[in-house]
This record gives sequence, C-alpha cells and structure tokens, in this order.
Amino acid sequence: MTFAEKYKQIVRKNNSLVCVGLDSDYKKIPEFLKGKKNSVFEFNKAIIEATHDLVSCYKPNTAFYEGSGAEGVRQLKLTCDYLRQNYPEVPLLIDAKRGDIGNTNEGYMNYVFEYLGADGVTMQPYLGGEALKPLLKQKDKGIFILCKTSNPGAGEFQDLKIDGEPLYMHIARSVAQKWNTNGNCMLVVGATYTDDLKKVREIVGEMIILVPGVGSQGGDVEKTIKAGLNSQKSGLIVNASRSIIYASSKEDFAQKAREATLVLREEINKYR
Amino acid sequence: MTFAEKYKQIVRKNNSLVCVGLDSDYKKIPEFLKGKKNSVFEFNKAIIEATHDLVSCYKPNTAFYEGSGAEGVRQLKLTCDYLRQNYPEVPLLIDAKRGDIGNTNEGYMNYVFEYLGADGVTMQPYLGGEALKPLLKQKDKGIFILCKTSNPGAGEFQDLKIDGEPLYMHIARSVAQKWNTNGNCMLVVGATYTDDLKKVREIVGEMIILVPGVGSQGGDVEKTIKAGLNSQKSGLIVNASRSIIYASSKEDFAQKAREATLVLREEINKYR
Repeated sequence: MTFAEKYKQIVRKNNSLVCVGLDSDYKKIPEFLKGKKNSVFEFNKAIIEATHDLVSCYKPNTAFYEGSGAEGVRQLKLTCDYLRQNYPEVPLLIDAKRGDIGNTNEGYMNYVFEYLGADGVTMQPYLGGEALKPLLKQKDKGIFILCKTSNPGAGEFQDLKIDGEPLYMHIARSVAQKWNTNGNCMLVVGATYTDDLKKVREIVGEMIILVPGVGSQGGDVEKTIKAGLNSQKSGLIVNASRSIIYASSKEDFAQKAREATLVLREEINKYR
Repeated sequence: MTFAEKYKQIVRKNNSLVCVGLDSDYKKIPEFLKGKKNSVFEFNKAIIEATHDLVSCYKPNTAFYEGSGAEGVRQLKLTCDYLRQNYPEVPLLIDAKRGDIGNTNEGYMNYVFEYLGADGVTMQPYLGGEALKPLLKQKDKGIFILCKTSNPGAGEFQDLKIDGEPLYMHIARSVAQKWNTNGNCMLVVGATYTDDLKKVREIVGEMIILVPGVGSQGGDVEKTIKAGLNSQKSGLIVNASRSIIYASSKEDFAQKAREATLVLREEINKYR
C-alpha cells in the first residue's frame, strides 16, 4: 500500500488530521520513568496506546533519539517496531531531514525504511532531485521535501526571490512537476506561515502536506486548515509534538496526551 | 583549541590537506573482516593506524553507519573514541548534513559533539542562520555549511540566480559576513565545481573549505588546489573516501589506503 493510500484510510477511520510528533527527549520525559529500562520507549508506548485511535500519523524526530547515541537509536527502533506490530494502519513518518549525494542517501534509506520500517521520511531539498533519486524510486514510501520550514528565520534563504518568486515556491513547483513521477512526493510547510501554505496548496493540487508548528511553536489552527486543505477537505498532516507529549509531567501524561490530541482533532475538524 | 587552530597544526605537522572519508559500509569492507566482532570499527582502526601521519582530518559520514542502525552508530562511536584517545591531534569532522529548527538541532549537537566527541560537523543551510544558532555558539567547533555540493545535480537550486548571483554564492556571503561572529564557520564546496570554488574563495577570505569529490567522484586535483587555496597556501580540507578506504579489498587494504593517501598528498602538495 502506498503512503497516500494508508493516510487516506486512517484519516477516514480516525476522522483526524493530527500527527503526534514523538520528539521524546530523555531529559523531558516524566521523572518517574527515568532510570527504568527502555524509559523513552515506554514513554512512547504509553503515548501510542493513548492516542492511536485519534491520529493520522506518528512522527518521531531522529534528533531527540540520536542525542543519546546508539542507545537512543535502539529505543527509537523499539518504538517503530511496536507501532508497526500493533497499529500497522497508522503511517510512521521519520522526521530525519537528511540530504546527501545519491550513493550516500542509500545509507539513510536503509536506516529509515529497512531498519526502522517507516512509511515516509522528511528530506532536504538543497542537493536537488538527482541526489534524491534512490528515495524517489520508492513508490510505496512518502518522500516529504522541506519547502517552507516553521522556524522564525526560515525566510533567510527560502524567501529569496528567483524570477520574482520565492525559493520555496520554486522548490514546491519542482517537486510537484518534475520529481513526482511516482506520485510519492509530499511537502513540508510550517503552520507559522499560513499565507505561504495557501500559495503552495494552489500549485501542488491534492498532494499531502506535512504541517508542523501548531502547539508550542504558535501556529494558528484555523488559518492553517483554511489555507492548507485540498479539494477533498484533507491532504494535511498537522503535527504537534511538545504540546501533546509533554501535556503533563506526572503519571497521567498519557491520559493528558490523549486529551490534548482530542482537543486538537476537534479544533481541526471544526474548520474542515 | 578551536577547529581552525587544530587544523593549522596538523597541516604543518603532516604537511597535508588530505582528509580521509571514513565512509565505511559493512557491505563494502573486505570479506575476511565480515562476521568478526566490531568489524567496521576494526576496518576503521586499521585505516587510521595506516594514515594518521598523512592526513589533515578524518571525516566519517553518518549515513554509512546509520544504515546498520544502533549497531552501526555504536561502531561509529568506537571509531571516534579510538581516534580521540590515540590521535587527538587529528581533527574529527562528522559529515552529518543535518538541519532542523533550533531546539531540535540541539539533539544533533549532543550527538556529534558530546556523544561522538567531534571537532566539527557538516550542516544544511536551508533553514537559515537562526536555526543554526545553537551550533554557531560553539566557538571551538567547526560548523561546515553546505554551499555547493559535489553531486551532478547540485545546480538545480544552488545555481538559481538571485539578483544576478547564484544561491550558493548568496549562502557563502551570509555565512562569511553574518553567521561567522565566532570565527567557527566553514563551507563545503565540491571539487567537481572548481570555477565555483574559485568564486567562493574570493569572497570568504581565509576561511576553511571542505572539498569533497576528488577520487571516485572525478574532481580534478590540480584545478581544485589552484582554485581553492587561501593566501597561506592552505585553508582546504580535500576529502577522498572510496578511492582510499577501498583501494584494496584484500588483507593489504590498510597498506593500500596508506599508499593512496600518500599519492593524493603528494599530488595536492605539487600545486601548493
């Protein structure tokens, strides 16, 4: 099954566009879990158990695991394995933001698709489509290209004008019109730039767009949904990480994560 | 000691600008090593023992290790620990090409600087200088920003013209004039684009430039050196990976790696 098909099914089943970002940092998980065996995995498992019927996707960001080295990577794998074995219907998107030359990208491909068993991965556009060929060939995977990122300084290069149009729009056009021959390309546009999201949606048709930046980063849900939906009132993966997984630092953290996910799902659906 | 100081000392001591790229892929190491404990580390260790008096830097690329998951990362750490303990005078540059928003980049910083103990790291420019702040603050580390990459399709976005000047030049200027307040910024320019290397050198002064792409990728050594040297006949880290570490697939692989490193060192020095 392709990423897009899996996404479509889960959106219908869970009536949700919410993606829970499993940015699980050992330093930030509840104190009572620390010191226990596989504490980061146990944290993720509890979050997954509490939210799997409310989400359209899970998105662990590799940075938070790699900060603990091989041990962190091992717990990321435990998390991915658990998700695939128990809730294979939920897409697993690895937020890796990798980007290297072609033969080197194959190493990252082995990491995210073979080792972690992910359905999709985020990638950098800077090296161009030629470098991404090994990934673009993976018909069943979702290849999410950074377009306009959610950080305050995103515009430094992304907004530079080329023939009157900002770089991020140029990238959106290349991805949609040149790279997407297998229908597996998707984009990343921050919820903190809803005007830009609207412009991107206008040129990429029904393409799935990952939208980080609601929650702790302050992106507006109403504006995001109105700007980003495709013609089927879908096509968005709206990610929140810290505002969901750290909703409580006590024993009730999973229950509070469920409540925060429910609130975000309802808020999004109000504008669909 | 800063990255630049460490680099200057080793260039003088070893009379070399050669960087050996430890892109050690389990699939490609000699057959007789496979199946042995820590085989990738043992491969790297032998390469380091055979070349440490001939190089200006070692540069493992994370992709080749992460392709084997947590086990690969563990062997990357063994390699980094070995190098620091035995040859602390040789700079260790992690080719990670990471790039995320600020708080997330801290995870990658922990990975490369705390866990692996590296002296420098390669980073993506696409999210802008604001996202890289946690790294740019590390005065003693070398922060290598991708400028013009070595792959055939590098120009798709990197050559797009902004006010008459290609994007990669715009990035070189931002790094040299805005981001480099701590003197720790460096650039990456492929040996496969020597005209571009010359243009970058003209605007970045004495800055250290990492130049991948000689060896298997076909970059011309004479043109690279003539285009890229700074006023002190230095300022380049010329990387070769596959042409050195896989110079032989037999028991003599380390000796052959030494010979290939010697040949490249002499060829480079001929044009300095």
